[in-house]
Amino acid sequence: MPNISQRAQKMPASPVRKLVPYALLAKQNGVKVYHLNIGQPDIATPETALNAIKNIDLKVMEYALSEGNLEYRTALKDYYHTLGFKDLDTSHFMVTNGGSEALNFAISTLCDDGDEVIIPEPYYANYNGFTSTFNVNVVAVPSTIDTGFALPPIEDFEKKITDKTRAIIICNPGNPSGYLYTREELQKLAEIALRHDIVVISDEVYREYVYDGQQPVSMLEFRELAENCIIIDSESKRYSMCGARIGCMITRSKKIRDAAMLFAQARLSPVLLGQIAATAAHHNDTAYILQVREEYTKRRNLLVELLNGIPGVICPKPKGAFYCVAELPVDDTDDFAQWLLESYSNNNETVMVAPMSGFYSDPKLGKKQVRVAYVLKEEDLRRSVELLSDALQKYTRHD
Amino acid sequence: MPNISQRAQKMPASPVRKLVPYALLAKQNGVKVYHLNIGQPDIATPETALNAIKNIDLKVMEYALSEGNLEYRTALKDYYHTLGFKDLDTSHFMVTNGGSEALNFAISTLCDDGDEVIIPEPYYANYNGFTSTFNVNVVAVPSTIDTGFALPPIEDFEKKITDKTRAIIICNPGNPSGYLYTREELQKLAEIALRHDIVVISDEVYREYVYDGQQPVSMLEFRELAENCIIIDSESKRYSMCGARIGCMITRSKKIRDAAMLFAQARLSPVLLGQIAATAAHHNDTAYILQVREEYTKRRNLLVELLNGIPGVICPKPKGAFYCVAELPVDDTDDFAQWLLESYSNNNETVMVAPMSGFYSDPKLGKKQVRVAYVLKEEDLRRSVELLSDALQKYTRHD
Ligand SMILES: Cc1ncc(COP(=O)(O)O)c(C=O)c1O
Ligand SMILES: Cc1ncc(COP(=O)(O)O)c(C=O)c1O
Repeated sequence: MPNISQRAQKMPASPVRKLVPYALLAKQNGVKVYHLNIGQPDIATPETALNAIKNIDLKVMEYALSEGNLEYRTALKDYYHTLGFKDLDTSHFMVTNGGSEALNFAISTLCDDGDEVIIPEPYYANYNGFTSTFNVNVVAVPSTIDTGFALPPIEDFEKKITDKTRAIIICNPGNPSGYLYTREELQKLAEIALRHDIVVISDEVYREYVYDGQQPVSMLEFRELAENCIIIDSESKRYSMCGARIGCMITRSKKIRDAAMLFAQARLSPVLLGQIAATAAHHNDTAYILQVREEYTKRRNLLVELLNGIPGVICPKPKGAFYCVAELPVDDTDDFAQWLLESYSNNNETVMVAPMSGFYSDPKLGKKQVRVAYVLKEEDLRRSVELLSDALQKYTRHD
Repeated sequence: MPNISQRAQKMPASPVRKLVPYALLAKQNGVKVYHLNIGQPDIATPETALNAIKNIDLKVMEYALSEGNLEYRTALKDYYHTLGFKDLDTSHFMVTNGGSEALNFAISTLCDDGDEVIIPEPYYANYNGFTSTFNVNVVAVPSTIDTGFALPPIEDFEKKITDKTRAIIICNPGNPSGYLYTREELQKLAEIALRHDIVVISDEVYREYVYDGQQPVSMLEFRELAENCIIIDSESKRYSMCGARIGCMITRSKKIRDAAMLFAQARLSPVLLGQIAATAAHHNDTAYILQVREEYTKRRNLLVELLNGIPGVICPKPKGAFYCVAELPVDDTDDFAQWLLESYSNNNETVMVAPMSGFYSDPKLGKKQVRVAYVLKEEDLRRSVELLSDALQKYTRHD
């Protein structure tokens, strides 16, 4: 049997996806699974976007430009102008197959084998996937559930910088923690990045979904970081069009852009239809986003309240994105999450959650936690928590 | 300024794409550019595919399964059954964002830094992009224009195998050469691969477009290679839907599949709409492909005849795909191709070709050659060759 690469052998399985086979089995056995495990909202995609697809007037579905078609990059530029970044023009945007590909390009553009990126943990588990792909090491800066995952003192980041550090990756607002960075924190990060001439990769794909009237601060606000900042953006969550696979990478640095273009050209083209859908959505989006934000606010409030009502469960209230992290009264949430799918059901229903071990550099840290996405409508969230609560009782009894 | 990775610094710019800025400039100056440089056909996408998109009945554009949705994988399986590979089931297919992503996954699954892949040259230039991304070295086995790019003796491959060799990549039928492998050649490649326990990555994205009644032989025919073979496939060329970004990776090896799945999960999902379009196209495709094949046959015959009619031009007749390689009476086709866009026009028209230097491991080998795609209708091909012929006279005079 031929050799499998070390990079594949060392790659951790996605904690969100590795339970999928058990979920499929449950479904085959007639059990309904409530999916709280993945950031796949049940929110409708904007009608303008769906209509743009239904009304396409194309004879040939052609390759797009490697950097994305001008029309969509113009829509992106206009959107960023409304955010206040009026210096950006279409050349600053590189369209990618989801924020995922933007992350992949950012890491491959900056990092070689053995290089390091600093990431506050818990962090989006697929950062492990993209770093492992390029044999890049994650150096984690821990935050904990007791402080609501508040960012560790910014100075902690600086202590971790070595001559192999190429970037700091932040996710703001954060998946899984829902943490929202303050301007002061970001300012300090900017100063550190400049002082050491490393890059801040700021993953802002949940920017629209920040609650309680708070305003997210984009890393783009720090102009002094022009050469040292990459923004990761995506239409997946903004417009609930995850399957369109449209995201982008934004940087004021021509040097980074030119290098990233080489990877973009090798894969020829980002997806065409998603650009058409996203362009339409951007032309007509304010009401949509306000409404969806309100919906997520209600769901968050409900979910956090219900979870904290289960004996032994702790769940800080997230400020943004659409996940919360809950500590459960079990020893091993990997086992518990699998058990929920394999061995538990109530009235032929069960619930799927994401064990948090994969969201930490040291899996042990997440052993008692799960990530729960509030991507389902309130009635489904109620039923999901009911199931979780019931399951916790039964699972505990099995111990 | 922050560091750019070595992998980016060493990556060759795509020979097909690096002239794009000059083409944009020419267009801005009101010059019409005939694109013979890229495999973007002007052939209409099947109506069934476009209609499937126009009639989508979705409320939420959701993530697809990381390996691709079952409906599309079923369509793929059915198509491969008609090719005779009845042992394949849906689990053998991993859907990717174009054949490009399948190549990326194949290389990252098999190769680490410093590993080697053997490729007969000239070869599809983006193989350099995907290997450079992972610091994998290409070991080329040369073929030459005087033999119509006939494959070098298969034994030449074996001589290049070292303990770092992980795979042999072939493209059949070949881009850029149009070469079609015989069963005997493939049989010998299979034997070599087995003997050294390396993988044959067979890029068969042009399988439908083979001419003169010849039949392409898929690497899948060699069952003994079950653990040592990866097929790269794509809907881009088959259905002229390059912008849909749908391809797949096929292997009978569970070990390879499981490893590749890790990369697929990290990027979450292949594009949803492209799967819908391609599924529809597969349900209704035989007439379409016959008709397109006939159209390409006519174009090839015309183009090759016209090119060979230009004094000093040599152009062997390709057996498949939709490119031919022509040797021109110039010393440096990189310079000539750029000059065509920058300094030449006739009646406000010019033509864009792909210099062949980027299709060889040693750029010098391609200095007198260009790749010309016969993706335009006959009338445009005629005009393009007229322009090329005229330009060659003027360019020669400038020497
Ligand atoms: C923090 C974060 N970044 C990036 C992504 C990538 O999403 P996509 O590739 O759909 O844009 C996700 C998806 O869940 C995410 O949670
Ligand atoms: C030989 C070969 N392989 C793979 C590809 C990738 O195409 P796509 O990513 O559009 O499927 C191409 C595109 O031109 C090609 O010529």
